Amino acid sequence: MTQRKNLSRTQCPIARSLEQVGEWWSILILRDAFLGLRRFEEFQQSLGIAPNMLTRRLMKLVDAGLLERQQYGSHSRRFEYLLTERGRSFRPVLLALLDWGNRHFAPEGKSVQLIDTQTGKEVQTLLIDQVTGLPLSDPRFRVVAGPAATARIKARYSPTGRSYDGSHPEATG
Amino acid sequence: MTQRKNLSRTQCPIARSLEQVGEWWSILILRDAFLGLRRFEEFQQSLGIAPNMLTRRLMKLVDAGLLERQQYGSHSRRFEYLLTERGRSFRPVLLALLDWGNRHFAPEGKSVQLIDTQTGKEVQTLLIDQVTGLPLSDPRFRVVAGPAATARIKARYSPTGRSYDGSHPEATG
Repeated sequence: MTQRKNLSRTQCPIARSLEQVGEWWSILILRDAFLGLRRFEEFQQSLGIAPNMLTRRLMKLVDAGLLERQQYGSHSRRFEYLLTERGRSFRPVLLALLDWGNRHFAPEGKSVQLIDTQTGKEVQTLLIDQVTGLPLSDPRFRVVAGPAATARIKARYSPTGRSYDGSHPEATG
Repeated sequence: MTQRKNLSRTQCPIARSLEQVGEWWSILILRDAFLGLRRFEEFQQSLGIAPNMLTRRLMKLVDAGLLERQQYGSHSRRFEYLLTERGRSFRPVLLALLDWGNRHFAPEGKSVQLIDTQTGKEVQTLLIDQVTGLPLSDPRFRVVAGPAATARIKARYSPTGRSYDGSHPEATG
């Protein structure tokens, strides 16, 4: 990608999230951090990317408050990269990606899966509303403009909300 | 990014998912498709990106089987881009990103939010295992090597699985 808008200027929370982690490497670094990797060499070995690119990505994740750089051992110039609370809260996105990838892009079968260790069964991932317990696919849940919305956002989301199901605005009014 | 590994050669389902949608624009195009946008001009107006880049991204999403290109109206050269079933199944990832973005990157308040239209309350997004009803943050759920795992993947995931909570392999054995 040669040119890029700064997405943080947009108000959309999805666009802003992508601004923080919207590159493959950044998301894969977070994945590895969730798997317990911490050190530069561990990430490099896992990802096989150029050191300068890894340094840049790690710094960006530190700047975004997703990883924390911490000195370790007696060598003053050795650092570990640990997930912050904000970084940890990215876990549902990773698990949703894991589920989606397994369902659609694993023609030879699953290489990695989330299981319930008490039953050995594979997890059936579902996104719900914690208040009602209903799956978010229920049509009662709709995406609407929030209190901080600009006129542009308000115009995009009708007062009754968007179902986020792909139905066309002209069709739904 | 100047150089890029082909992630689909890796077996990790997260990496493979990113191979399909791992660029800002692709994910934002999907977001807009969920909002009901279908036509080239609609996407272009929403995203403000160069037509050639939009064309490339749309084609990639069509090739990945996430969008379907369909002729509309009487003009034989006008097309709409509709979400396929595979594309629709990306919704949980978008909703997880929406939730994460709102919690961490909306300093001025929420501009877009998911609400329960029957109560007017904001949705509390939670990822659960449908079998047990438990949140996926429960430590009983662990990521393990699946039946199609290569030796490399097996080495990465211990037989008892990874908690995916950021604890270090050396610490957890």
